[in-house]
Amino acid sequence: MEIDLKQPILKKNDTLAERNRALFAEKKVFVLNILASPGSGKTSTILATIEALRDEFNIAVIEGDIASSVDSERIKAQGIPAVQINTGGACHLESDMIRRAVEVLNLDDLDLVLLENVGNLVCPAEFDTGAAVNVTILSVPEGDDKPLKYPLMYQVCDVVLVNKVDVLPYFDFDLAKCVENVHMRNPKARVIPICAKTGEGMDEWYQWLREKVASYKA
Amino acid sequence: MEIDLKQPILKKNDTLAERNRALFAEKKVFVLNILASPGSGKTSTILATIEALRDEFNIAVIEGDIASSVDSERIKAQGIPAVQINTGGACHLESDMIRRAVEVLNLDDLDLVLLENVGNLVCPAEFDTGAAVNVTILSVPEGDDKPLKYPLMYQVCDVVLVNKVDVLPYFDFDLAKCVENVHMRNPKARVIPICAKTGEGMDEWYQWLREKVASYKA
Repeated sequence: MEIDLKQPILKKNDTLAERNRALFAEKKVFVLNILASPGSGKTSTILATIEALRDEFNIAVIEGDIASSVDSERIKAQGIPAVQINTGGACHLESDMIRRAVEVLNLDDLDLVLLENVGNLVCPAEFDTGAAVNVTILSVPEGDDKPLKYPLMYQVCDVVLVNKVDVLPYFDFDLAKCVENVHMRNPKARVIPICAKTGEGMDEWYQWLREKVASYKA
Repeated sequence: MEIDLKQPILKKNDTLAERNRALFAEKKVFVLNILASPGSGKTSTILATIEALRDEFNIAVIEGDIASSVDSERIKAQGIPAVQINTGGACHLESDMIRRAVEVLNLDDLDLVLLENVGNLVCPAEFDTGAAVNVTILSVPEGDDKPLKYPLMYQVCDVVLVNKVDVLPYFDFDLAKCVENVHMRNPKARVIPICAKTGEGMDEWYQWLREKVASYKA
């Protein structure tokens, strides 16, 4: 006999995620779940986004890491509220961790919460956090074939930010092929090439975010 | 009441890993578990290693992927035996999967088995495969702070290959700091800077492998 341990855990997570989602809708806060491999530029993208939009919106960040608070310290240094979740070895954030993290934040005062998930293209895709939208960052050095190898991650995300386009000349990365691979997993996903470091392409990303935040305020 | 589901799974995996390890020792085959983030260059490093050492050793590859057989097809195209394990969503290889994969290979005829784990810096670190040694590949674009954020991965590996050193001029990556961060997790880990694409630093890696394979034959 095989006992499926995973389904009950996922089911419980989904129930709590729906509760988070209802709370965020009630509070009119747009919550974005940011997913990616280690080192693809999640924190850099968050820092650039804060810098660009901090005068328009009240922003907070929830940082998920297995260990260390390196990232949340970088956010706090910008004067933005940041809650660090250390999963203590766990490979993803669960909706219950998010619920406890938002208790620390004052949702009534916020427009936008950026949720940096654990750097991992596998497990975080299975665990709904209650965020309104999932965004995956794929950096150029990782290669254009990632959607082929990590199907679920690309199925569950609505936007793919292709980061580090400044180093395109130094890598065998075919942007058209990458878009094709993303659309094989999710035909509706929007692909935005960016460079968080130089700012290239970031305006399109900010405009997408502005529209989303506005739709949650309406 | 909390039921710990993980410990029994890990314990069962450890028992089967020890059996694999005993089998590999009996057959005098050196098995190497290669761990890394998605896109850090596991397959490229394996392909370069095959090219360099195929006249000295009989080599086989076990490819772990969530989906797709892109990588094992690249290996087979080189005329090297390759077994593809598709985990069907699971984020790591377990020792039972390895046991079934090696049944397909003729261990009596082999000197070296390269085991490409699922691209993930978290979960594969927890699951012993029975390999003699774990090697982690950290690519320059991921950043020198990865050992701080993924402690267990760097604790369980004996060698860290710092790959893609050809792009060091284009990234904020401090090699000395990286070595320091690795040694914080594992003071005995050997760090070898390489570029699988250009061949830079690969001779040191091949020499390390030659010595290991020889020690298993003795």
